[in-house]
Amino acid sequence: MTNFQDDGLALHTDFYELNMMWTYWQQGVSERNAVFEVFFRKLPFGSGFAVFAGLEHVIEYLSSLHFTESDLTYLEEVTDYSPEFIDYLRHFEFKCTVRSAVEGDLVFNNEPIFQVEGPLAQCQLVETAVLNILNYQTLVATKAARIRAVVGNDPLMEFGTRRAQETSAAMWGTRAAYIGGFDATSNVRAGKVFGIPVSGTHAHALVQTYRDDYKAFMAYAKSNRDVVFLVDTYDTLRSGVPAAIRVAKEMGDKINFQGVRIDSGDMAYISKRVRQQLDEAGFPEAKIYASNDLDESTIQNLKMQDAKIDVWGVGTKVITAYDQPALGAVYKLVSIEDDNGDMVDTIKLSSNAEKVSTPGKKQVWRITRHEDGKSEGDYVALASEDLSSHKDLYMFHPNYPYINKTIKHFDAQPLLKPIYDHGTLTYQLPELEEIRRYGQESVASLWDEYKRVLNPQDYPVDLSQLAYDNKMAIIRRIKENVNQ
Amino acid sequence: MTNFQDDGLALHTDFYELNMMWTYWQQGVSERNAVFEVFFRKLPFGSGFAVFAGLEHVIEYLSSLHFTESDLTYLEEVTDYSPEFIDYLRHFEFKCTVRSAVEGDLVFNNEPIFQVEGPLAQCQLVETAVLNILNYQTLVATKAARIRAVVGNDPLMEFGTRRAQETSAAMWGTRAAYIGGFDATSNVRAGKVFGIPVSGTHAHALVQTYRDDYKAFMAYAKSNRDVVFLVDTYDTLRSGVPAAIRVAKEMGDKINFQGVRIDSGDMAYISKRVRQQLDEAGFPEAKIYASNDLDESTIQNLKMQDAKIDVWGVGTKVITAYDQPALGAVYKLVSIEDDNGDMVDTIKLSSNAEKVSTPGKKQVWRITRHEDGKSEGDYVALASEDLSSHKDLYMFHPNYPYINKTIKHFDAQPLLKPIYDHGTLTYQLPELEEIRRYGQESVASLWDEYKRVLNPQDYPVDLSQLAYDNKMAIIRRIKENVNQ
Repeated sequence: MTNFQDDGLALHTDFYELNMMWTYWQQGVSERNAVFEVFFRKLPFGSGFAVFAGLEHVIEYLSSLHFTESDLTYLEEVTDYSPEFIDYLRHFEFKCTVRSAVEGDLVFNNEPIFQVEGPLAQCQLVETAVLNILNYQTLVATKAARIRAVVGNDPLMEFGTRRAQETSAAMWGTRAAYIGGFDATSNVRAGKVFGIPVSGTHAHALVQTYRDDYKAFMAYAKSNRDVVFLVDTYDTLRSGVPAAIRVAKEMGDKINFQGVRIDSGDMAYISKRVRQQLDEAGFPEAKIYASNDLDESTIQNLKMQDAKIDVWGVGTKVITAYDQPALGAVYKLVSIEDDNGDMVDTIKLSSNAEKVSTPGKKQVWRITRHEDGKSEGDYVALASEDLSSHKDLYMFHPNYPYINKTIKHFDAQPLLKPIYDHGTLTYQLPELEEIRRYGQESVASLWDEYKRVLNPQDYPVDLSQLAYDNKMAIIRRIKENVNQ
Repeated sequence: MTNFQDDGLALHTDFYELNMMWTYWQQGVSERNAVFEVFFRKLPFGSGFAVFAGLEHVIEYLSSLHFTESDLTYLEEVTDYSPEFIDYLRHFEFKCTVRSAVEGDLVFNNEPIFQVEGPLAQCQLVETAVLNILNYQTLVATKAARIRAVVGNDPLMEFGTRRAQETSAAMWGTRAAYIGGFDATSNVRAGKVFGIPVSGTHAHALVQTYRDDYKAFMAYAKSNRDVVFLVDTYDTLRSGVPAAIRVAKEMGDKINFQGVRIDSGDMAYISKRVRQQLDEAGFPEAKIYASNDLDESTIQNLKMQDAKIDVWGVGTKVITAYDQPALGAVYKLVSIEDDNGDMVDTIKLSSNAEKVSTPGKKQVWRITRHEDGKSEGDYVALASEDLSSHKDLYMFHPNYPYINKTIKHFDAQPLLKPIYDHGTLTYQLPELEEIRRYGQESVASLWDEYKRVLNPQDYPVDLSQLAYDNKMAIIRRIKENVNQ
């Protein structure tokens, strides 16, 4: 994407966002204070949790957001916007206040994970890009965490660039996978730009070039100290592994024979036979690397079958989030300044029950029991609520209020943290290593019941009584209007 | 991705490609002539065909391919490459010959769709990026063509940016969807950069801002001449559509009331009721726009139920190729110069039968009967074969040779066209409109049996006798070696 002239991301938006900005501006409401929140309705992959990612790219986007002259020329050509409005866009400066989960945070369905407050027209413009970035990166970080959960402490490599959905997915996707718990990537550019460890030795083409496993491995061994030989070009057990062993023996201390990689065939059967061959040849330390359309289900099954795989390479399934390639987070107006300058809360109704939004500017509180730190779920409250005034916390399921509990002596940590204050970035982006460590700790802190890959327990995401009553009152009012 | 300093796409590759380059260079084989071919093993989505896309981005990548100084510094830090090799990379200039299907071409499984011939190390470097780009764009163009096939001539809009897998997928994906037959996009940047028509009016937020359908539509109508009102914010039939009608009546000729958009609820039922309301109000020309997780299956079902939908908005399902988000094309060495300077053909074997490649530099011939132009399938021959010497063409299925036929008086068109000649771009990129028209014609020329969305007939992709015999001989030779 580097070749587009005078290119910025201000036009990386849906046309209707601009048309709404134009309408707001013409109608004199563009500068009214508004609050939008991002949430998703359903956890992806049947997962019990999601790992938030994408904030760094969102910040990069928001901090450089402006309309280039060629952007404005284009809009003049294809719209009826007035010269004054074009000039308004020319002088656009992002002035909103942003609160957000931070990368590596656990996030759940039906709670705000990102919040933009500021001039209505500004909030509107950024919707598309914010969703584009957060949807994808959170999806991949979550997928990666699920895969990490089943591989345990084994090394886990991301190999997906060739199957990624174009260039930026390859970059940001591998970063999200790293946050979710991967150890390294094959993508060299991501290694350079983000500092992710890079990994990779050779492909089938090297063996095909020499048309012989032994000659190819020997060529590789003469040029590289750390070697992993790909052994399945012709015949894994009868040619590849014997050739690898022969080269390892002949080269001895001149190389660091790390192991062999298999990329096809029945991984359980072949890995056991390969293990046996390596052990019998005196290489019990040599590792077996596996890659072949792996994901958390396949890996879990291979582990159950006691496959002798030490290092896992995952590509397509993590970088595209193959079994659910879109998260579906939305960005909804929850509160807006009215004609009198007062903030009023707003809702989106729908005959699809799960599409009904929760009005009001909110905060999410992560609730734990004070005595043992045990997680009790998330408590979505209006931003104006003061939790410190509660001695006990009454929590109930917003759809099934008869599921409820009272927590005595609770601790509450806010999920949404300050990122921008009226357009000024106040959040210090952590180093990627720190984000990754935080993500790992976040997942580790979660109870196993929520981490189960298949059919996990539902993590409670409850509404405060005030948020719930506010929502019901607004629904009632709208229904009365509609029925007039 | 615009903020990375001194960034190029040379490192947009897998680390093993660089390690192989280094090995080839050290072993003195880096400049040997090699031929690599891209193919996919299975058509996506159970489709009977695929639409080739991505060439423009591949050309942009190849034509600007070079290592920046910071790329080289990074490689010096993380590898043991010698200064001489780093210098070799510094002076890298792409010198390969490229032949390819062109955008809008129909392509099928198990045939070369892209071919790179040139110095081994150069061919190796570009594998990852070529696959990354072609895999995604061909996938989306194919998905788009399937959706176009079921909507007939109805207007079809791409709305997927917020669910795209990061920024470049949103751009190139919407371009691929346009090639596949979409009419417009919501992505303004794609509109600017590629000249795709942009489309979009307003979102729920506009209605929520006014907290009233009528007031919101009136505000929109006062600022815009062409209007489509989104009617499902509160209650489609009791509030949204009546408000839209009221505004349309009150504004009269001052606006061009194009119709209403529905984004939730049962589309079949609601669209019929909305149609009735619009007709009874005297707006039989007003269109009904629909968008709600639509894809070719849902649209086909809605059409069967006689849903009154005139304009289709498709987002997530096309931009992520939701039901199969990766194509899985691979890039295999098919021929390599040996120690004597002769080209020898190479194969990748596998215990997964479909992973066995077809050796030799090839051309794909699209065969039609001379008398009536009827398609007879694709004929994959060695590049050295001269089809004009054949009077009749014997075609047989490479896996089931008893399925065969002889075509008398055939015409043959080559699929792979010259793109680069020893690094010089010789192909003139067509305008996008021309590509789209060509794609539409390509799909239209295909027999309905191959276009059926569910369980289409298999399009024949046959091997020439020479290509088949060559493959079998090479397999036999390798097996003999392995069994020694």
